[in-house]
Amino acid sequence: MSAPKKVVLAYSGGLDTSIILKWLQTEYGCEVVTFTADLGQGEELEPARKKAEMLGIKPENIYIEDVREEFVKDFVFPMFRGNALYEGEYLLGTSIARPLISKRLVEIAAETGADAVAHGATGKGNDQVRFELAAYALNPDIKVIAPWREWDLTSRTRLLEFAEKNQIPIAKDKRGEAPFSVDANLLHTSSEGKVLEDPAEQAPDYVYQRTVNPEDAPDTPEIITIGFEQGDAVSINGEAMSPATILTALNEYGRKHGIGRLDFVENRFVGMKSRGIYETPGGTILLQAHRGIEQITLDSGAGHLKDSIMPRYAELIYNGFWYSPEREMLQALIDKSQEHVTGTVTLKLYKGSVFVVARDSEHSLYSEAHVTFEEDAGAYNQEDAAGFIQLNALRLKLLAARDRRLKK
Amino acid sequence: MSAPKKVVLAYSGGLDTSIILKWLQTEYGCEVVTFTADLGQGEELEPARKKAEMLGIKPENIYIEDVREEFVKDFVFPMFRGNALYEGEYLLGTSIARPLISKRLVEIAAETGADAVAHGATGKGNDQVRFELAAYALNPDIKVIAPWREWDLTSRTRLLEFAEKNQIPIAKDKRGEAPFSVDANLLHTSSEGKVLEDPAEQAPDYVYQRTVNPEDAPDTPEIITIGFEQGDAVSINGEAMSPATILTALNEYGRKHGIGRLDFVENRFVGMKSRGIYETPGGTILLQAHRGIEQITLDSGAGHLKDSIMPRYAELIYNGFWYSPEREMLQALIDKSQEHVTGTVTLKLYKGSVFVVARDSEHSLYSEAHVTFEEDAGAYNQEDAAGFIQLNALRLKLLAARDRRLKK
Amino acid sequence: MSAPKKVVLAYSGGLDTSIILKWLQTEYGCEVVTFTADLGQGEELEPARKKAEMLGIKPENIYIEDVREEFVKDFVFPMFRGNALYEGEYLLGTSIARPLISKRLVEIAAETGADAVAHGATGKGNDQVRFELAAYALNPDIKVIAPWREWDLTSRTRLLEFAEKNQIPIAKDKRGEAPFSVDANLLHTSSEGKVLEDPAEQAPDYVYQRTVNPEDAPDTPEIITIGFEQGDAVSINGEAMSPATILTALNEYGRKHGIGRLDFVENRFVGMKSRGIYETPGGTILLQAHRGIEQITLDSGAGHLKDSIMPRYAELIYNGFWYSPEREMLQALIDKSQEHVTGTVTLKLYKGSVFVVARDSEHSLYSEAHVTFEEDAGAYNQEDAAGFIQLNALRLKLLAARDRRLKK
Amino acid sequence: MSAPKKVVLAYSGGLDTSIILKWLQTEYGCEVVTFTADLGQGEELEPARKKAEMLGIKPENIYIEDVREEFVKDFVFPMFRGNALYEGEYLLGTSIARPLISKRLVEIAAETGADAVAHGATGKGNDQVRFELAAYALNPDIKVIAPWREWDLTSRTRLLEFAEKNQIPIAKDKRGEAPFSVDANLLHTSSEGKVLEDPAEQAPDYVYQRTVNPEDAPDTPEIITIGFEQGDAVSINGEAMSPATILTALNEYGRKHGIGRLDFVENRFVGMKSRGIYETPGGTILLQAHRGIEQITLDSGAGHLKDSIMPRYAELIYNGFWYSPEREMLQALIDKSQEHVTGTVTLKLYKGSVFVVARDSEHSLYSEAHVTFEEDAGAYNQEDAAGFIQLNALRLKLLAARDRRLKK
Repeated sequence: MSAPKKVVLAYSGGLDTSIILKWLQTEYGCEVVTFTADLGQGEELEPARKKAEMLGIKPENIYIEDVREEFVKDFVFPMFRGNALYEGEYLLGTSIARPLISKRLVEIAAETGADAVAHGATGKGNDQVRFELAAYALNPDIKVIAPWREWDLTSRTRLLEFAEKNQIPIAKDKRGEAPFSVDANLLHTSSEGKVLEDPAEQAPDYVYQRTVNPEDAPDTPEIITIGFEQGDAVSINGEAMSPATILTALNEYGRKHGIGRLDFVENRFVGMKSRGIYETPGGTILLQAHRGIEQITLDSGAGHLKDSIMPRYAELIYNGFWYSPEREMLQALIDKSQEHVTGTVTLKLYKGSVFVVARDSEHSLYSEAHVTFEEDAGAYNQEDAAGFIQLNALRLKLLAARDRRLKK
Repeated sequence: MSAPKKVVLAYSGGLDTSIILKWLQTEYGCEVVTFTADLGQGEELEPARKKAEMLGIKPENIYIEDVREEFVKDFVFPMFRGNALYEGEYLLGTSIARPLISKRLVEIAAETGADAVAHGATGKGNDQVRFELAAYALNPDIKVIAPWREWDLTSRTRLLEFAEKNQIPIAKDKRGEAPFSVDANLLHTSSEGKVLEDPAEQAPDYVYQRTVNPEDAPDTPEIITIGFEQGDAVSINGEAMSPATILTALNEYGRKHGIGRLDFVENRFVGMKSRGIYETPGGTILLQAHRGIEQITLDSGAGHLKDSIMPRYAELIYNGFWYSPEREMLQALIDKSQEHVTGTVTLKLYKGSVFVVARDSEHSLYSEAHVTFEEDAGAYNQEDAAGFIQLNALRLKLLAARDRRLKK
Repeated sequence: MSAPKKVVLAYSGGLDTSIILKWLQTEYGCEVVTFTADLGQGEELEPARKKAEMLGIKPENIYIEDVREEFVKDFVFPMFRGNALYEGEYLLGTSIARPLISKRLVEIAAETGADAVAHGATGKGNDQVRFELAAYALNPDIKVIAPWREWDLTSRTRLLEFAEKNQIPIAKDKRGEAPFSVDANLLHTSSEGKVLEDPAEQAPDYVYQRTVNPEDAPDTPEIITIGFEQGDAVSINGEAMSPATILTALNEYGRKHGIGRLDFVENRFVGMKSRGIYETPGGTILLQAHRGIEQITLDSGAGHLKDSIMPRYAELIYNGFWYSPEREMLQALIDKSQEHVTGTVTLKLYKGSVFVVARDSEHSLYSEAHVTFEEDAGAYNQEDAAGFIQLNALRLKLLAARDRRLKK
Repeated sequence: MSAPKKVVLAYSGGLDTSIILKWLQTEYGCEVVTFTADLGQGEELEPARKKAEMLGIKPENIYIEDVREEFVKDFVFPMFRGNALYEGEYLLGTSIARPLISKRLVEIAAETGADAVAHGATGKGNDQVRFELAAYALNPDIKVIAPWREWDLTSRTRLLEFAEKNQIPIAKDKRGEAPFSVDANLLHTSSEGKVLEDPAEQAPDYVYQRTVNPEDAPDTPEIITIGFEQGDAVSINGEAMSPATILTALNEYGRKHGIGRLDFVENRFVGMKSRGIYETPGGTILLQAHRGIEQITLDSGAGHLKDSIMPRYAELIYNGFWYSPEREMLQALIDKSQEHVTGTVTLKLYKGSVFVVARDSEHSLYSEAHVTFEEDAGAYNQEDAAGFIQLNALRLKLLAARDRRLKK
């Protein structure tokens, strides 16, 4: 790879990406463009602008954007149509944000004539894979720079030395080592590393930042309703809202009731197991609600097919293959199923739990006329079941007859 | 089908199966053998013996058995190795009990020279299918009698008339109609029908029989540990226990903390949707615990394969194909994966929720040496990630290059 | 089911469906509408009109249609996009024709105010299921009459007696029993029953009707090219053709070279095994050609996903679920993959075999620059492979290390 | 990676691996152990011994072994139980041999106290992955040396120079470049590269080495029978044979009749497409025969499950994951299904084609009594089909009713 001339950097404004910014300038002597996105991580962006300017970035090279609506509408919601859970539990909060960031990096590279993009993910994790696969899928000729895999700033001490030598301001609380590493966006907050590294040790309470402890949550349950149209949430308690507004509101419900905490050991794409603490307050509510509305509006053939491809769909997103033909094919399959996933779900929120308690829809396939224990006025002929069972049993009978025959 | 001469009836001792008993005697003039099993449903069995005697069953034709250990060891535990959930939620408590009952019915038929078995399931549900597929798979020549699909006792009134005419005692509380229908065993209690038939209506509190309301559960969380060996639970808080004893103990923990309630609309095999309230207190804890121990002891390739076949495995059990080649093939696959699923999981139980908070095992595949944010002493070479990503990206780059080429 | 008043009958003009026609008139006293379709079975349709008239059908109630283009364009081609093979071998020639016939039956019922449709399939086979599932999926209130499951004309003698009594003309060669049963359309001819019923006996030569014996095929191979656009064949040897024209032409190539014979024992949906002789001359060529063009134009992720869902897709079609949400979802997935399946395949036809010998496409993903054994000018960095392998091996090493640790 | 001290080299005795041998000695100054295996590639092994001695290998460090029986019994046959085809076509002849070689390399390393193994695969292909994943899975601490990824002998000229400088004899026909690259073992011969690199060009006739051109094959078909026990071939024409003997005999049948040629473009695990010519004469016959015996002895539930996991199973083998938990889990599933796959298949071999023409087994599930077009004496009740269809249709009717309702 020849040296990059102009690099678009995913820039948070924090110490680490500021060091990367400087390192790119000094190591490669290249022009740097910064991209700072509001994905709902809950931090102000304007300080990032000032810091970038201070580090010598030209004003026209500073991109600061609120992408929350795009994030929820084009990434989170499509994923929730699939009820995606990685390894049975994880709602993919970090995984789903990376492709959007890469997409903007590559687009800004095209706008600014940059030949490279850079990110601050380490060489041990999944995020490097997600950033880079997305970037290459969108521009096969882009260069991707991953400083953590390249440089020799391999200890906290060296990083701080580099920062000091290069006049990068260091916030007081960044002098010491953080007790764990955090990633946050509108969908979730994840914490990992350091104090969390032994999965046999319980996580300390202070790790949780996004939700109250269920024990401190209100003693009274709260009932809410979520409205869906074609698989996407469109309203809460009857009030129509935009995608990001809905997720923000659900996050608040979840936070208050201590919903969406997960202590998890997962398999990284790069081959090792890692332990993370995830908080996905709104997403956890949304998943239950979506399943609830599917229960009455989705046909069993459709639902079982969706269930069977879900693990692969989730794995693709986890591994960073959002922009791949197979993810798009699965999305086509999933989206096709959501045409009638429209209606209202009622949920009970209480001390860490979310229960579906009722669902209603004009698109319902539930037929009280068929299922009733009462007289059904001929809707269903019980004698049909005899034939149904006989033909389902036929091959089993033939198997049993063979066994019997061979034993003689 | 020629008329049966001797029938083994799955007999609970309750009103409905007593009517069936009498109906078999009068309709077919056949000898009846009763089989009453203790599956952990929480009812005494001796009254069933007396009632059977009173209805004219010969003592040697009355079979009463405690099958709880067999139920948990040979049915529940193998199923939990697979983390089976039907339609993402249901722990299959009713489904898994039916094959065991059919197995004993068929075995008793062989012992007593009976040519038929009979059950009390209706023509609308899944249980008829499960009873009959299992029976035919174990004896291809057995006759199966399903009185609910045959007789004309199609209303409560007619049933009671038949009972009175035949001197079958009717408990006072059975005069009126039950407000819903219940099935119970050591794994779960299910309730459905009547007051539950409208899925847009919240279920009344009195439906729940097996667990306290989370709101009434203790205000303080309880921490327990479950020990596993090769995928099966073997101890609680360090105390070794038999399979049924463990499930019984977990049920008590779950009951107390309001764990394992599910309000669910599912797709029956016979083609309609139905709504059920399930309470699976111990099973819900067990599933979380099993997943927890798998997190550190199961390889990702093994785990992802298991996840991908789980929906089909669960569907087979739900549909009644426990005794089928494909269920046995999947079981062989699942069991093969459990060799090292050994260790201890720590769980927190609190007001309806169960959280895994720690897991420990000598069989752990988790490597702190690899995952650590600290210096890893060469355990992992971050530069490997660059090559890993490049080759994973290669096809995506070729795709992007094609798109670019065709656009020109 | 109340008695039908007006029935649309799938009518071939042959003896069996003429008997059905008469039986419907006499048994139900209902008005009959006949639908005779040219699906490429190779029989003239006008005799069917005359016969229908002779049996008292009003001219406006006689529907005769050439549906060959619709058959290939909307049924055969979509299925071939999925490379569908039932049980690894069968090209689904009969299965794919049934939904189209049912669709027209239901449409004609709507046009003519009929309340029922009728077909001539027996109660043992798959076709009854396919006809009826399609009909019910398109009109939930339609009645479907399957005379073979209802009447008492259960032997050849009784059928002929009924025909004679009702003045239905019997062709001389229909007096004796046919030595096997045949179904044909533009995609295939199937033969089953009678002389074919013992799968341990070789099929007699006279069973094959659609292809020459490979031993009698030309001694010289023939080379042809097939052009594809977005997954569908559009030309042969450079000449653009309509879907039905292409399949007709391929059938002629296949017939001449003895291609597409299959002697097969399959599992019917109704639970038994049956043996069939299938001849699918053009379809066999088309499948190989489609696979050939996919080899260079389809990405591996897309291709492997398609391969993994193919057995289920084929099973759905075989079982009669063409008009089901899950078939449509899988079709959406498949169709999404075919955007770039465009190009030309060269095939060699010779004495029963078809070989892909070359493929070419502007949409090709094959990169000689990458794969070459020669110097590749940096297209591919062999060192990347080391990292790729290390990270793929990591979990295997951790497994091996565990095994070693536990053995100590 | 520290420098290896003693290396076990997969040594063919040819020019390339002789150069590797010398390079290991000179580059690392390490002791070399050679392993030369007879996998049925059709070359004598003793010349390899002499050449190794000449290159200074101590006699006790020269391992020459005939592993053909182990290869077929423990690798080829288990794979054929799964009917494995990669990307629908490829019989995995190269893929399945690599794990065995790695296994012996690792075992010999343990016996001889070597700390490394080495292979002669390049950095572009799949074989490096297969060799190395297998080696690491069997010994997590082994070093693997892949000279082609390390050295600077990147052109034919440089290789020959190195050989001459090191007194490695060069056969005359090795002076010029081979027109393509070959791999062979008892299962297949593959050819790729050079003249085959353009998939739009037909492969020249001289590429095929293992089979006669179908046009030159006998003009008369040949009929053979193959006997199976529990999924494995055990006899030909009634004569019992060992696994390797059977495959050798089938290879001769296939060679003679021009069976098993495949011109194929596949997706390599490392991300690129490549074109290969495969000749698998005996394997092609064996696959058809195995499918034939499964047709009558395997239940549909078992068969459909096998079909659905086959693509993943084949991909695992292709990608080099023979020694992985998930391959072993799938093998457990597959093997479980083969208990009754016992019987005899009759095949017709003719000019490039192999047809199953009959199959017979005491374990057959085919029931002429059920399937017959004649009177079946009550084996099958056609009325059962009505109920079977009604319940399969129920959800489709509910869907259609919803569509109708919503349109109003």
